[in-house]
Amino acid sequence: MDPSLSVDLNCDLGESFGRYQLGQDAEMMALITSANIACGFHAGDPSVMADTVALAKRHNVSIGAHPGYLDLQGFGRRAMSLSALEIAHFVCYQVGALAAFTQVADVALVHVKPHGALYNLASKDPETARAIAQVLAKYDPELVLVGLAGSALIHAGAAAGLRVAQEGFPDRAYLPDGSLMPRSQPGALIAEPKAVGENAVRLVKEGLTKDNQQVKIDTLCLHGDHPEAVKNAKEVRMALEAERIEIRSIAP
Amino acid sequence: MDPSLSVDLNCDLGESFGRYQLGQDAEMMALITSANIACGFHAGDPSVMADTVALAKRHNVSIGAHPGYLDLQGFGRRAMSLSALEIAHFVCYQVGALAAFTQVADVALVHVKPHGALYNLASKDPETARAIAQVLAKYDPELVLVGLAGSALIHAGAAAGLRVAQEGFPDRAYLPDGSLMPRSQPGALIAEPKAVGENAVRLVKEGLTKDNQQVKIDTLCLHGDHPEAVKNAKEVRMALEAERIEIRSIAP
Amino acid sequence: MDPSLSVDLNCDLGESFGRYQLGQDAEMMALITSANIACGFHAGDPSVMADTVALAKRHNVSIGAHPGYLDLQGFGRRAMSLSALEIAHFVCYQVGALAAFTQVADVALVHVKPHGALYNLASKDPETARAIAQVLAKYDPELVLVGLAGSALIHAGAAAGLRVAQEGFPDRAYLPDGSLMPRSQPGALIAEPKAVGENAVRLVKEGLTKDNQQVKIDTLCLHGDHPEAVKNAKEVRMALEAERIEIRSIAP
Amino acid sequence: MDPSLSVDLNCDLGESFGRYQLGQDAEMMALITSANIACGFHAGDPSVMADTVALAKRHNVSIGAHPGYLDLQGFGRRAMSLSALEIAHFVCYQVGALAAFTQVADVALVHVKPHGALYNLASKDPETARAIAQVLAKYDPELVLVGLAGSALIHAGAAAGLRVAQEGFPDRAYLPDGSLMPRSQPGALIAEPKAVGENAVRLVKEGLTKDNQQVKIDTLCLHGDHPEAVKNAKEVRMALEAERIEIRSIAP
Repeated sequence: MDPSLSVDLNCDLGESFGRYQLGQDAEMMALITSANIACGFHAGDPSVMADTVALAKRHNVSIGAHPGYLDLQGFGRRAMSLSALEIAHFVCYQVGALAAFTQVADVALVHVKPHGALYNLASKDPETARAIAQVLAKYDPELVLVGLAGSALIHAGAAAGLRVAQEGFPDRAYLPDGSLMPRSQPGALIAEPKAVGENAVRLVKEGLTKDNQQVKIDTLCLHGDHPEAVKNAKEVRMALEAERIEIRSIAP
Repeated sequence: MDPSLSVDLNCDLGESFGRYQLGQDAEMMALITSANIACGFHAGDPSVMADTVALAKRHNVSIGAHPGYLDLQGFGRRAMSLSALEIAHFVCYQVGALAAFTQVADVALVHVKPHGALYNLASKDPETARAIAQVLAKYDPELVLVGLAGSALIHAGAAAGLRVAQEGFPDRAYLPDGSLMPRSQPGALIAEPKAVGENAVRLVKEGLTKDNQQVKIDTLCLHGDHPEAVKNAKEVRMALEAERIEIRSIAP
Repeated sequence: MDPSLSVDLNCDLGESFGRYQLGQDAEMMALITSANIACGFHAGDPSVMADTVALAKRHNVSIGAHPGYLDLQGFGRRAMSLSALEIAHFVCYQVGALAAFTQVADVALVHVKPHGALYNLASKDPETARAIAQVLAKYDPELVLVGLAGSALIHAGAAAGLRVAQEGFPDRAYLPDGSLMPRSQPGALIAEPKAVGENAVRLVKEGLTKDNQQVKIDTLCLHGDHPEAVKNAKEVRMALEAERIEIRSIAP
Repeated sequence: MDPSLSVDLNCDLGESFGRYQLGQDAEMMALITSANIACGFHAGDPSVMADTVALAKRHNVSIGAHPGYLDLQGFGRRAMSLSALEIAHFVCYQVGALAAFTQVADVALVHVKPHGALYNLASKDPETARAIAQVLAKYDPELVLVGLAGSALIHAGAAAGLRVAQEGFPDRAYLPDGSLMPRSQPGALIAEPKAVGENAVRLVKEGLTKDNQQVKIDTLCLHGDHPEAVKNAKEVRMALEAERIEIRSIAP
């Protein structure tokens, strides 16, 4: 047994909007240690944000902002041509909006994780990554920046003096070079709960090798919006616990 | 000469949006002591907010959030049926969004002033006023709440433990009971710059009598979006200075 | 048996938006004769509209536009202060948008029914009702205007030369004066499927008495967005069929 | 003199939104033969659309729909990742919305011209071009499709059986291969009014050579939103008239 092994479990939550319900927030909140809360651009609205912060507080789950593109119709999954400066402003706006709800609820805002197409761009594009990291470092140097393990965003966060959390995806297959297998390839998505749990353990124990560097996984992403979400999350927890891997938030 | 007489001059700014320019922000910023900056719901966008905060900082003008209804098309001037709780969430969201830009720019967020139809409702409706005041007091008890002199919002702010700033309108006529003459009545709008200046002096020197109580005016609203805006603002300044009334921000 | 008795069954559909699913469109479409399709302001988006038109066509269900306020977050249920002219423009825009999809799909646009807070306002406010009716009459004088039985909207539609369809609500209780019992009163909502079916039959057979005038019910509104929706709709159909009331579209 | 030479002059109009004014619609409308009217996605709102249709009717100017991306903040100039089918639905929606206003005003909807980033994509991407052309041909086969001279959109329009209008830009320089010089290159933008007029004449008289094919220019785009807009437009008209080139709408 390795007493030092631990990992955070994060999930995108607070994605309902007005009359529209999405996700299984109440169930998922009981299974995770960090909640990425939508900030009203790609999902979520002020009342949903307030409710989700309250829910996270009740479950003692760490809270993070989950900023995305201003594209509710596309759920933030459609790439948009914005300048790096515009992206910095968008992220600043959304993080501040969520921070107001955490402040009113008297809980900490622990981390920030970009959403969807913005997450993908920030993983690959150093200029976008730097713009996000630098505005967050100015906003609050204590924030943890969550990004794809070994990505441009992680490097930019570290360079900006932020703590970073390297993220792995237990329901996704990885290529030998440490990158995610594209969703278009067969086998990219791991559907079987047992296999998801095993992948989770492997990611925590072995990490990834990216650009010839060993990357330790700090947080695992659990998807909350598909039918098997709760089942998968429970399987991941059981698999980690069976290996005596501590499940604990990225909060310092 | 009364050395204790002073007043703040505030103006709604940062109301441009994307490709759309509105207002004479650069000129007005040189003439005021407090800027009410739109927060992206009825006007403004993240980049405009960042620019307007920077502009205010350069002019050493106090910064306030100017939250409104989510109605860009109606510029926040159309009443909407929201619950008091929804309004509290809306205000919280917008104030936090602007606060992120002030934090990144390393300047203080001094005040909050509701916009348009929300301002009007909060002036009259105690439940709305209380919801706004209480969420702000939880968010940051050091904030100054700006509202119509003698209104429900001022009472709610004081009851919530916030500092308040009673606002007067030098380009509007007042009824004997201390309320604004409705815009529909002839003479409600004061257009002539000299008369606006005189009204400003009168409001500061005499205050208003509302509900049999004497109300001291803390801040005067200068409109920034009509052709005579700059001229009126200069006239108000000259008239106040001629009476040795100090022009100074509501910042503590 | 009265061979002349017939009624249309309508339902609000196409209320999904982007990633957000709402309603049981596929099930409901098989049970109704007229679909009120959301037009993108309070619900729906262009792709949802195209899909819903195609679904209605497959089921041989008459298609109507269901315009609402520009308030996705409030689902068009929050009253907004718009002028009658603005409302006419909003309705014109939305009806035209849906008409494009019916034209591309080579099916008719049969009717228009305002949604939510706009429906309520148009029921009571003659100026709003007239603005809607007149713009529709100019747009296409063959349209059927659906409104609350005996309401201002029905009167305005008839005055503008439109065919009108008087709507009844089988899951709502009525007051002796022919108006809907307010939702706040106990017994206003009829939940039990059998009772809903009986109310449907009564509305068709007896009509309503409003302002001392007998009103014949042309169409019954079936709600599609609650758990019992499909069950209630089936109960209504069975009850009507048991009374040999023909279920047929308002299409001429 | 060549009696057969003629050209249409088009301009993007109706780009105001709510409180925000943009462009010099009244002045430009007197100088053009075709108005591309924004449809509420990247600019314009229902009331602006109604007013702009009325203005065009008074000036006897042909009306076209100017659909763009759903991105008011970016004015439709930011590329977005949408599928070709989504784009077809977006275009259908917007064209129908504008068509409702022309129908109410009893004028024809003559043409469709995509806006901004959508125009650029449709010029280059055959799949997007085909999706737009085919949905328009189904909607109304009498429509004229306006696109960049010799572009994928023009080819797709012709293939779908639509009449097409090849567009040239008198204030832009062209490369020898018939494509527009990128804005980033020096000399790409022609600012001097006289030179704009001369370029207009050259485009009409000589056309362009693209892909070894001679392309006749049917319509010239006049920009309406910069300070010199009216002056440039007048210069173009004078230069064309001096060459006895008839200025006439693309309406059949």
